[in-house]
Amino acid sequence: MGIRVAVAGASGYAGGELLRLIAGHPELDLVTATAHSQAGAPVTAVHPQLAGLDLVFAATEPAALADADLVFLALPHGESAALAAALPESVRVVDLGADHRLRDAAAWSRYYGGDHAGAWVYGLPELPGQRARIAAATRVANTGCYAVAITLALAPLVAAGAVAPADVVVVAASGTSGAGRAAKAHLLGSEVMGDLSPYKVGAHQHVPEIKQATGATGLSLTPVLAPMPRGILATVTAVPAGDADPRAVLAQAYADSAFVHVLPEGRWPHTAATLGANSCHLQATVDVDSGRVIVVSAIDNLGKGAAGQAVQCANLMLGLPETTGLSTYGVAP
Amino acid sequence: MGIRVAVAGASGYAGGELLRLIAGHPELDLVTATAHSQAGAPVTAVHPQLAGLDLVFAATEPAALADADLVFLALPHGESAALAAALPESVRVVDLGADHRLRDAAAWSRYYGGDHAGAWVYGLPELPGQRARIAAATRVANTGCYAVAITLALAPLVAAGAVAPADVVVVAASGTSGAGRAAKAHLLGSEVMGDLSPYKVGAHQHVPEIKQATGATGLSLTPVLAPMPRGILATVTAVPAGDADPRAVLAQAYADSAFVHVLPEGRWPHTAATLGANSCHLQATVDVDSGRVIVVSAIDNLGKGAAGQAVQCANLMLGLPETTGLSTYGVAP
Amino acid sequence: MGIRVAVAGASGYAGGELLRLIAGHPELDLVTATAHSQAGAPVTAVHPQLAGLDLVFAATEPAALADADLVFLALPHGESAALAAALPESVRVVDLGADHRLRDAAAWSRYYGGDHAGAWVYGLPELPGQRARIAAATRVANTGCYAVAITLALAPLVAAGAVAPADVVVVAASGTSGAGRAAKAHLLGSEVMGDLSPYKVGAHQHVPEIKQATGATGLSLTPVLAPMPRGILATVTAVPAGDADPRAVLAQAYADSAFVHVLPEGRWPHTAATLGANSCHLQATVDVDSGRVIVVSAIDNLGKGAAGQAVQCANLMLGLPETTGLSTYGVAP
Amino acid sequence: MGIRVAVAGASGYAGGELLRLIAGHPELDLVTATAHSQAGAPVTAVHPQLAGLDLVFAATEPAALADADLVFLALPHGESAALAAALPESVRVVDLGADHRLRDAAAWSRYYGGDHAGAWVYGLPELPGQRARIAAATRVANTGCYAVAITLALAPLVAAGAVAPADVVVVAASGTSGAGRAAKAHLLGSEVMGDLSPYKVGAHQHVPEIKQATGATGLSLTPVLAPMPRGILATVTAVPAGDADPRAVLAQAYADSAFVHVLPEGRWPHTAATLGANSCHLQATVDVDSGRVIVVSAIDNLGKGAAGQAVQCANLMLGLPETTGLSTYGVAP
Repeated sequence: MGIRVAVAGASGYAGGELLRLIAGHPELDLVTATAHSQAGAPVTAVHPQLAGLDLVFAATEPAALADADLVFLALPHGESAALAAALPESVRVVDLGADHRLRDAAAWSRYYGGDHAGAWVYGLPELPGQRARIAAATRVANTGCYAVAITLALAPLVAAGAVAPADVVVVAASGTSGAGRAAKAHLLGSEVMGDLSPYKVGAHQHVPEIKQATGATGLSLTPVLAPMPRGILATVTAVPAGDADPRAVLAQAYADSAFVHVLPEGRWPHTAATLGANSCHLQATVDVDSGRVIVVSAIDNLGKGAAGQAVQCANLMLGLPETTGLSTYGVAP
Repeated sequence: MGIRVAVAGASGYAGGELLRLIAGHPELDLVTATAHSQAGAPVTAVHPQLAGLDLVFAATEPAALADADLVFLALPHGESAALAAALPESVRVVDLGADHRLRDAAAWSRYYGGDHAGAWVYGLPELPGQRARIAAATRVANTGCYAVAITLALAPLVAAGAVAPADVVVVAASGTSGAGRAAKAHLLGSEVMGDLSPYKVGAHQHVPEIKQATGATGLSLTPVLAPMPRGILATVTAVPAGDADPRAVLAQAYADSAFVHVLPEGRWPHTAATLGANSCHLQATVDVDSGRVIVVSAIDNLGKGAAGQAVQCANLMLGLPETTGLSTYGVAP
Repeated sequence: MGIRVAVAGASGYAGGELLRLIAGHPELDLVTATAHSQAGAPVTAVHPQLAGLDLVFAATEPAALADADLVFLALPHGESAALAAALPESVRVVDLGADHRLRDAAAWSRYYGGDHAGAWVYGLPELPGQRARIAAATRVANTGCYAVAITLALAPLVAAGAVAPADVVVVAASGTSGAGRAAKAHLLGSEVMGDLSPYKVGAHQHVPEIKQATGATGLSLTPVLAPMPRGILATVTAVPAGDADPRAVLAQAYADSAFVHVLPEGRWPHTAATLGANSCHLQATVDVDSGRVIVVSAIDNLGKGAAGQAVQCANLMLGLPETTGLSTYGVAP
Repeated sequence: MGIRVAVAGASGYAGGELLRLIAGHPELDLVTATAHSQAGAPVTAVHPQLAGLDLVFAATEPAALADADLVFLALPHGESAALAAALPESVRVVDLGADHRLRDAAAWSRYYGGDHAGAWVYGLPELPGQRARIAAATRVANTGCYAVAITLALAPLVAAGAVAPADVVVVAASGTSGAGRAAKAHLLGSEVMGDLSPYKVGAHQHVPEIKQATGATGLSLTPVLAPMPRGILATVTAVPAGDADPRAVLAQAYADSAFVHVLPEGRWPHTAATLGANSCHLQATVDVDSGRVIVVSAIDNLGKGAAGQAVQCANLMLGLPETTGLSTYGVAP
């Protein structure tokens, strides 16, 4: 008899990936999957890749979740706070939404609107000391997908004083699953295939989360929608602030990490190598012309950027080995 | 201490997928991976998706393989027969190449050229009685990727007398990994993206294998290269030969199969739902205009079409549960 | 002062391609583009590829169209008949919808529902005698996209008695623009990239049109959605019915055609070579195993499959050279 | 009788696009197309999209080119200088390679190696005063593809003193055709589809060209290979250096340009809108967090980034209207 877990909002892309990971996890039993508009439908009608999984979506209500040992919330921003508040404290919760990520209520209101629901322990285990905090928590705010890729690339360099925190420039491209499953004309296959398209230029809502997590004090983020279902490639540049070799700083920071790989010199991360995995690939150099530090980071936005990371946090919260049920090997080509 | 396995020809796409599956398999220990031109290189230099796997390619020689309990051969057609002959009989062998699939030596010579190396037990466990034959064998010829998709769709219908075997028409589209990793101009991304391209029209070398495996006596196969890395979608049509409902015939044939799913009525297979999995999705209907039976079959050409199937056969040969280390759930979207 | 043309329903994909072709046409002046929900918006807000075209969408009403010399109707099925009936007879009309394609009212009602609006001259100039009929007409029903690809491949063979008309099997894959611009979840980029997905298997509404245009009496059509914005690849197989060489029959049929190219022997059509062009590429062979004739046909579904063909018909109706403003050269890679 | 033009190195992607544009150009007659390894082959065997173009590749030798009025050189870097030197001065030459772009011989030797062949007039007509210089020249060095996208975004801002030239950060993603047609394993469709992959990070050979053309004095360029055949999206960020509105500066700079479109506020460039066209789309804003100016630029790397630009220069050199035979409208979706 395993640990009983539920997924609220399981009809979206992150929800589907959670179901896949839970179904293959040796210690977790998937007892409930909820969905708003799909309540009553077989899970496989929405997620045909899970053929063989015999489960019907329940409605997204506290009663459907309250007897689980752990609940993953994969709901639209603004919906998870209310639902979480209705769950018993004994139920552990990992929230994949943004509601509890920010400590700065003003930043929340400016970028998301509405009242701030308060901050939870931040679910990025590779930050210093964070594994222990996650393990001790009953409520964890999973990181945003861009924030994972950028924070893993940048936070150790800021912490080590290797780069100046005031002038960080990031361009990050994401596969389309990061934009969700709602039917929108600009996300049609006809529109996105063969296309690179920037969006929310100059004012992306993930900026305060990234600044909070990395220690950057000035950060320009340009997100780009890329013609692929999954993957984030973040190019992070900053002005060096000392003599430290940026690659060596990163290598030391992740020497004991099962999921974050600083690649051998000369090899650069690319997104396809992380498909379906909970891994992050990193490489760094110093630009010969500008002298800027350039770090490139690749993840699967639904893996280490969402569902994989959430399972990693859940493992820690449940006292399981961090890597249980997760793979660091990508599905390629 | 697990079962010692080796992969010969591990630098190609099927080889890389074998390494991924073996690395995640609870009972198998990957002891050797060989490659011709890449001998001496780290596995991760060729397969960056396996970052964290600490292994160097050995040269493809019998000595490198002889102390394994089981060897997977993922070599070009024509190379596996000689290598297999040099291995002790005590070493179990699963050959992913075509060398030992055909029982008809003349058909071999016509489509592949050269001498026929003789037939091994055919590695498609879902054929009637085949699980026992595979379990008893020390040498198994893994199926071709098109052959898997088409045989699973057609063989039960021929066997049940539900369709006429003499006039089967198949159009099957494959992702580009099916064409291998050799650098060829017509396989460049610039060429294949946005493109559907038929090849070997009217004379594909897989036809005799498919006829042998399905019982079809006349078969037209038109293969098409599709703009995606993985996946085969086969449309199989045949003239009905009785009153049997084709979907019911298939559902009965695979009622106990862990990997072959006849979808609920009204849902049709599509390739993305099988990505990274060892599954095959099937659906059938009768065309309202022509009266033909139409069966559509979807697999991952590197999963159930190659490496996944090979591990499934290896599990049987080793006395393990057939599903060990394999997933029926696809990585989607 | 050129010929005044209007496009009704210009906010969709076929409509946008029409605008592009008209804007580059030396004899046509684009005077009006209409759209339902986008009325009042700049054309470039919907079609950013037309940056520099200074035009605002009008509402789709007869008054907006009545003073044009020729009107293209790119409306959803069922809407063009009413609009066309409200236009003066002096206004030439090319209807890209299905409303006036079928001569068989019963077939119309079975596949489309509702009352049949009556047949117009069929807008496929390459059929025998059809150029003259189109040139003499004031109302032309443009062909369906699948129908173009399949009819050009099959009609000459049926007419020549080279194949039996009773048992034609077609599998045809289309890019996603063929499914239109309406926001539907199954057409999202995340769903279609990396995926091949059959639809309307066993009962596609284009079958009666194709039978009417080709002379086939029994036809199985399996349409497949392919991961690319544009292009149709149709594989047409039939039982030979004489000694005629199928490639020679096709070569003779299109010897004088500017847009239909029977490729040199050994080269097979592929869709990318027709992107953005009004061309159709064909090749034929006889299958060595089954003896079936196999013809492969490639077009751009928005080019020869829709907007290009419509301009070709308009050229004929207006007494212009058939090729005016159209290219036979594709945009590749 | 039109102007006689030849293309040397016409078997590559830029060469093929040149052939397409010349074939559709009302004033140019394509008299010769040369290719090294393909000499003697029909052009359509290499470029099937040009079906109907009846021409055979000649060998790439001066004698094959000397009687043309204008020659386009689409050769690998390092090969065009020698060939151009062997052509009569009366033959106008547009070189699509890098050999004559740089004025700084030391920069040439550092990034390309070998001796510098000397600078020609730089073929970017939209730079101030450049149209007249191109019109007066008999030798023009066409711009590099990244350089076009970045220079059009940045040069007016530097010239106007609107940004500081010393700290420019660029991340630019390109479709795979920019990497050429040579068969390389990392450019296979299986590798590039679903993947974003940075390359030459920290030391790209286009940096000196971009600095020369834009006036930037410190520039970090990170190029990324994107999963699409064509298109470049460049994100250019710089520190503001005055009160000028960056969008207004760009709008004024290109007010009279037929091909460079500063989009209406709120709309951002994306690559698919430029496919097959000679257009560049631009938009600019100021980042709310960092205060950096962000300019995004989109082109077709084979259009405005190579062949389209080359024809634009040729038009100017030949005294034709700049837009002759070129389209500003993209092929979308």
